[in-house]
Amino acid sequence: MSDQTLDMNNLEMSEKAKPLLAAVTKHIRENVDPITEEFYRLGEGRTDRWSYAPGQLELLDGAKQKAREAGLWNFFLPNAETGEGLANLDYAYIAAELGKSPLAPETLNCSAPDTGNMEVLERVGTPEQKERWLKPLLAGEIRSAFAMTEPDVASSDARNISTSAVLDGDDWVINGEKFYISGAGDPRCKIMIVMVKTSPEAETFRQQSQILVPMDTPGVEILGPMHVFGHDDAPHGHMHIRFTDVRVPRENVLWGEGRGFEISQVRLGPGRIHHCMRSIGSAEKALDLMIERGLGREAFGKKIIDLGKNMETISRARIDIEAMRLMVLKAARAMDVLGNKEARIWVSMIKALVPEKACEIIDASMQVHGATGMSQWSPLSGMYTWQRALRFADGPDEVHHQVIARAEVKAFQASNTRGSKGDS
Amino acid sequence: MSDQTLDMNNLEMSEKAKPLLAAVTKHIRENVDPITEEFYRLGEGRTDRWSYAPGQLELLDGAKQKAREAGLWNFFLPNAETGEGLANLDYAYIAAELGKSPLAPETLNCSAPDTGNMEVLERVGTPEQKERWLKPLLAGEIRSAFAMTEPDVASSDARNISTSAVLDGDDWVINGEKFYISGAGDPRCKIMIVMVKTSPEAETFRQQSQILVPMDTPGVEILGPMHVFGHDDAPHGHMHIRFTDVRVPRENVLWGEGRGFEISQVRLGPGRIHHCMRSIGSAEKALDLMIERGLGREAFGKKIIDLGKNMETISRARIDIEAMRLMVLKAARAMDVLGNKEARIWVSMIKALVPEKACEIIDASMQVHGATGMSQWSPLSGMYTWQRALRFADGPDEVHHQVIARAEVKAFQASNTRGSKGDS
Amino acid sequence: MSDQTLDMNNLEMSEKAKPLLAAVTKHIRENVDPITEEFYRLGEGRTDRWSYAPGQLELLDGAKQKAREAGLWNFFLPNAETGEGLANLDYAYIAAELGKSPLAPETLNCSAPDTGNMEVLERVGTPEQKERWLKPLLAGEIRSAFAMTEPDVASSDARNISTSAVLDGDDWVINGEKFYISGAGDPRCKIMIVMVKTSPEAETFRQQSQILVPMDTPGVEILGPMHVFGHDDAPHGHMHIRFTDVRVPRENVLWGEGRGFEISQVRLGPGRIHHCMRSIGSAEKALDLMIERGLGREAFGKKIIDLGKNMETISRARIDIEAMRLMVLKAARAMDVLGNKEARIWVSMIKALVPEKACEIIDASMQVHGATGMSQWSPLSGMYTWQRALRFADGPDEVHHQVIARAEVKAFQASNTRGSKGDS
Amino acid sequence: MSDQTLDMNNLEMSEKAKPLLAAVTKHIRENVDPITEEFYRLGEGRTDRWSYAPGQLELLDGAKQKAREAGLWNFFLPNAETGEGLANLDYAYIAAELGKSPLAPETLNCSAPDTGNMEVLERVGTPEQKERWLKPLLAGEIRSAFAMTEPDVASSDARNISTSAVLDGDDWVINGEKFYISGAGDPRCKIMIVMVKTSPEAETFRQQSQILVPMDTPGVEILGPMHVFGHDDAPHGHMHIRFTDVRVPRENVLWGEGRGFEISQVRLGPGRIHHCMRSIGSAEKALDLMIERGLGREAFGKKIIDLGKNMETISRARIDIEAMRLMVLKAARAMDVLGNKEARIWVSMIKALVPEKACEIIDASMQVHGATGMSQWSPLSGMYTWQRALRFADGPDEVHHQVIARAEVKAFQASNTRGSKGDS
Repeated sequence: MSDQTLDMNNLEMSEKAKPLLAAVTKHIRENVDPITEEFYRLGEGRTDRWSYAPGQLELLDGAKQKAREAGLWNFFLPNAETGEGLANLDYAYIAAELGKSPLAPETLNCSAPDTGNMEVLERVGTPEQKERWLKPLLAGEIRSAFAMTEPDVASSDARNISTSAVLDGDDWVINGEKFYISGAGDPRCKIMIVMVKTSPEAETFRQQSQILVPMDTPGVEILGPMHVFGHDDAPHGHMHIRFTDVRVPRENVLWGEGRGFEISQVRLGPGRIHHCMRSIGSAEKALDLMIERGLGREAFGKKIIDLGKNMETISRARIDIEAMRLMVLKAARAMDVLGNKEARIWVSMIKALVPEKACEIIDASMQVHGATGMSQWSPLSGMYTWQRALRFADGPDEVHHQVIARAEVKAFQASNTRGSKGDS
Repeated sequence: MSDQTLDMNNLEMSEKAKPLLAAVTKHIRENVDPITEEFYRLGEGRTDRWSYAPGQLELLDGAKQKAREAGLWNFFLPNAETGEGLANLDYAYIAAELGKSPLAPETLNCSAPDTGNMEVLERVGTPEQKERWLKPLLAGEIRSAFAMTEPDVASSDARNISTSAVLDGDDWVINGEKFYISGAGDPRCKIMIVMVKTSPEAETFRQQSQILVPMDTPGVEILGPMHVFGHDDAPHGHMHIRFTDVRVPRENVLWGEGRGFEISQVRLGPGRIHHCMRSIGSAEKALDLMIERGLGREAFGKKIIDLGKNMETISRARIDIEAMRLMVLKAARAMDVLGNKEARIWVSMIKALVPEKACEIIDASMQVHGATGMSQWSPLSGMYTWQRALRFADGPDEVHHQVIARAEVKAFQASNTRGSKGDS
Repeated sequence: MSDQTLDMNNLEMSEKAKPLLAAVTKHIRENVDPITEEFYRLGEGRTDRWSYAPGQLELLDGAKQKAREAGLWNFFLPNAETGEGLANLDYAYIAAELGKSPLAPETLNCSAPDTGNMEVLERVGTPEQKERWLKPLLAGEIRSAFAMTEPDVASSDARNISTSAVLDGDDWVINGEKFYISGAGDPRCKIMIVMVKTSPEAETFRQQSQILVPMDTPGVEILGPMHVFGHDDAPHGHMHIRFTDVRVPRENVLWGEGRGFEISQVRLGPGRIHHCMRSIGSAEKALDLMIERGLGREAFGKKIIDLGKNMETISRARIDIEAMRLMVLKAARAMDVLGNKEARIWVSMIKALVPEKACEIIDASMQVHGATGMSQWSPLSGMYTWQRALRFADGPDEVHHQVIARAEVKAFQASNTRGSKGDS
Repeated sequence: MSDQTLDMNNLEMSEKAKPLLAAVTKHIRENVDPITEEFYRLGEGRTDRWSYAPGQLELLDGAKQKAREAGLWNFFLPNAETGEGLANLDYAYIAAELGKSPLAPETLNCSAPDTGNMEVLERVGTPEQKERWLKPLLAGEIRSAFAMTEPDVASSDARNISTSAVLDGDDWVINGEKFYISGAGDPRCKIMIVMVKTSPEAETFRQQSQILVPMDTPGVEILGPMHVFGHDDAPHGHMHIRFTDVRVPRENVLWGEGRGFEISQVRLGPGRIHHCMRSIGSAEKALDLMIERGLGREAFGKKIIDLGKNMETISRARIDIEAMRLMVLKAARAMDVLGNKEARIWVSMIKALVPEKACEIIDASMQVHGATGMSQWSPLSGMYTWQRALRFADGPDEVHHQVIARAEVKAFQASNTRGSKGDS
């Protein structure tokens, strides 16, 4: 496997992007960090969990405005027609910074799942779809969701998707249930991309389509939030949604009937890289907190940091973080060089590697903190549960390991066949 | 280390206790399981999280009543003057069953932290203290709390305890803060045992005392609940409490001033064994759920259980559970044979072993479940967070490993000294 | 799984056996330890690796003679017609002691693979077979081998066995190759039990037979020793043997044609338990050496034992050793109570658990020793390679995990069927 | 830590070096692979383990000659006055290839410990020292050794070094013992660099010196080979050497008295990188063998590769190999950019990461092979023991973790101080 990838090892940020990274760091320090505590404090006072309290969105929009004016906007979109966006490699550096702050991504209009939805619309949307949905998304005026996972089947095998869409005249009629639809709880969420089965008789990977469904379409019913270790993440939310005879126009299908899988290949690579790079920011933060706590408390006559295996734990965390960082940069570079489809093994590698290790690092930090580490006084338990959730989101670790192993075996067989025929 | 313990390997339940285990299993199936869902459903409707909804306590009291009538009551109390209670070894078998049901322990009056408080009162309480507090606790009429951990110091080193109690006339005046006081949120909680520093000038392990503080004493202020991974465990709760000039009579000190550490040795062994045995019940349940889910879903043309490493994961979980079970039984037996103090190495061994492994097993079960495993539709994430919390409660793993290693080194040195002098 | 096994938790040594354990310990200290160094020193001088040097066998026979006179002989054989032998549980305690000394097992006539061969002959041999082979084995006059593993197939699936035995008149004619035939290098090895395929047309588990083949039979050719991490373990050896038209009389088949698998079930349980119990002795020794080294050297101003995670490593080793010990005792007890066949899950559990963990403990001890730990100045690397080899011998870990997991799933299904029918 | 290193992420091979990598690969295939089997076969026939058999060196010298003619020579020496050598980054790519073949490094004159000795001589040697020793080493005419580790102290703390060198007239007189002196068994080894204590009264890190000692100096006595898991690695060897009143001229000290530690900083970085890069080649080979074996054998009706967790094991190995590769490239780049001293944290990171993980991968490959994996029929056990040895060589893992953790804590404190003063 290594041969083909020797040419993808320039992992340096481009000269063009370096000032942007500096500007993002400055933006977070000056415009995001100062409003974060108040944003959440205001949120605690709201009566409807699925709304924002007065003042919250004003704070957020202020920071968004500043970022946009500074040109720190829509970085996630590589090679966009609009001229916006950075190469995946450059963006990966920025995403790691964003991972240290819960509010930062949205202030740059770089939040999941909007990023994936925007990239899909930009790549395969019709002019009408772009005008109607992409434009306000790129402007940060609305938000969106992506409805793929279903409660009753193992969605890790996408062929199991059972929500159906049937043509009736010029309308698709959709029936089924989806859950863990992240972001669908936000009152600003106006549009969903829904993975449905349209052609049960077609060949296996041509049965699915992706369809645009406005949130206010009759028959779309939010049954409630799914929890992640007891958190509902309101008002963003990971919603459980029922579709009952939901009707949308025929032209709401993206890229044509039966191309649901193809679209997934467009969206999944970048989304996973963004997640992983933010995970690295999160692991960095956990390591900082571990050191801070270890230096700040004493027991048995020593600083906690000097007790038992704590120093080795810190060293291993640093090593793992640097290794993960380089792997994510390489996956980003692979996407820039090879395209989303060819780079998918690299994406699977970081998806299987990073959240698992980030969980370990955060957990170790928690252990150094004692009970406080899992309390509301520390961000660590929230960070942990999100990384734990990432081990399922966009495919469980096991599926990625299968993808990687199959590619490895295939490469072995190819090189052996080549070898046995002689290299002449 | 092994020599001294060869005589403690009869880990069989006594003939006397076997019918009790059967009766407990029957009680859970007939009296507890049928009310569990309704109990929690009722709870969802309450307006004050720190109360019970109408009907909840009636359900619970009904099951308690039946258990008490059947003689399934206060098993946790070995060698009690009252004649109640089982040997630690016998009780360990029963506790493992209790660990599979969240309500079962209380229906047998065997819930933490009451069990520890009752054992302490039974062992070292004055007749007046017993009459006032032990009697209603043994009858299951009130509940209690134990206030040890403090937010501002590393409480794993108990010498760090800083909450002070100063004699003023015939009263102790208590000032300080405690947190993670489990059970203090329950409206039925009437009494706390509080670890305080009474004699800062005394030698290191004679500076602390334990004092009885009724919950309604002026100056006791519940600041709020501490969360465990976002859960507040209301109405039980893990409360943050401030003591401001709290006055209790001089005779509320337990066993005499400066004996706080000695009392800890009475209480901590059994409590840890009970936790660990329930952890094993929890791990058993996680394994059952893993198999059930693995058999019930398909992906990529196979049952999930037959994919990848899942069968090996099941095997390793079974092996670990059986090894943990035997270790806990041995620790219980050691307490029965050697007494709480001499058996402390065995107790530290299970405390360092069991919650960590239980976390691993529950986490593996979650992974097999996919996203559902961490949702409110599954008990797994709640089970995980509780086992994770146990890695701090009653001393973090690291402290137990230190205790064990020091004993090991000491045993090595003793045997070597003996050896080098000849064995004649 | 736990229910069925509650009655097997009396793991205490019988009163009858306790003095034997004491006698064995004394025997090792007085008769074995004093000759060990000289035995190996003499061996270094020999010119033919596959022989003993003058004086070696005299030393060994002296110790054997003393053990036999003291009645410390053939303990491994439970419920023997001969009246010798201990219950598996009692023997397990003794085997752990034997595991600390490389020569001790043979001095008690308790070495692999003779123990398994003797048990098989005792259980299923004809009077003639017993007279000819069992008698001198029980007397410690000859040694033996067991030839099962083959170089060209995955022997972990015993159905793959391809060495053939074909009846020709009154003779079996054997052709094929075996390797890793432990003990076949010893000049005292006179007899092999060979697993062969006799009935390729029969149903799957009736195709194999076990046949007695004297080492000096024409056509038996020792091709050379197989190495274990570079060690040839001469003169015991793990030999590679070719069978070319080897003829033995028809009556040399054990227990009848097609019963090869049944015989395996007789032999494999005890052999695995003995291995595992000796592994525990080995792990104990590694832990002792770790502490000794850690106390005896200094670096960076501290004893090595007090650096980094070493104390936690010691604690974890102690916990694992105690858990393994109890598991092996339980497996032994299960064999005593349930018989070899029914207890096989317990045997698989310890076989999958113990050598893997023993490897970890020995490896950790090596790390504390620095380079010396892997040198000829320390027994650790030899101990490691043997435990590593045990992860293959008598079935690789993976096969045992499969056996355990299948039993677990079956038990779950059985209990669920029972459950769903109601418990009335 | 990340900030300072963003500029070191161009890990691409230079255009200049790419054809060299191709030439090396071709050289191994055409000139090294074809002689490897015969080289070792010839070696088996020799009577003196500490010599080469007739024909062996001729084979080796033939391949060396071809490499030298092709300009594939002394790549390891960056920025050499001689004009030879590659940047560390470029050489790292080549070293990974060399790691797949046991003979390849020497054919390019890139074997340890000569590489380190040559680099030291090139950097700090006097013209006379260079003429006398560096010249024939660079020409591949002689070999050398480096004597640092001592049997009686924890050499991981270099201050413990106790071999003394005392000036007597114009001679140093050396007394002490060293062990694990790799390469000192080779009859072509003519010179040793010996770490000695020259100035016990000086400050801690000025007490040591490095001195050139010709192998044939009177008083240099090779006591025998140290084993690595039973292997003596003859004739290269890891020798145990006693120095008794060994006299060498005063000018044999390198770079001046008391500069032993400074010299170590020159030599250790590159040596560790070369080891780690070859380790990656070794892990690659283990993975290839795992796949080959898994595809080539069947059990229980499936290819072994499709059983249990084997596919996930392959995936994890691939991920780990790629992560390690990038980390080693980054460490090499750091040395090119920052210099050996400043890059030492990166070197410690790979030294603590790579051999440990390589051991895991090789061990997993062995497990898939069954017993054959640890036999002489497979290179795996030899590969394992060498990687295991690397966890001690040039500092045990634990020391590297300490170095990394201390740097991490220091960086945290620096950034926090900076932070608290404001970033203005």
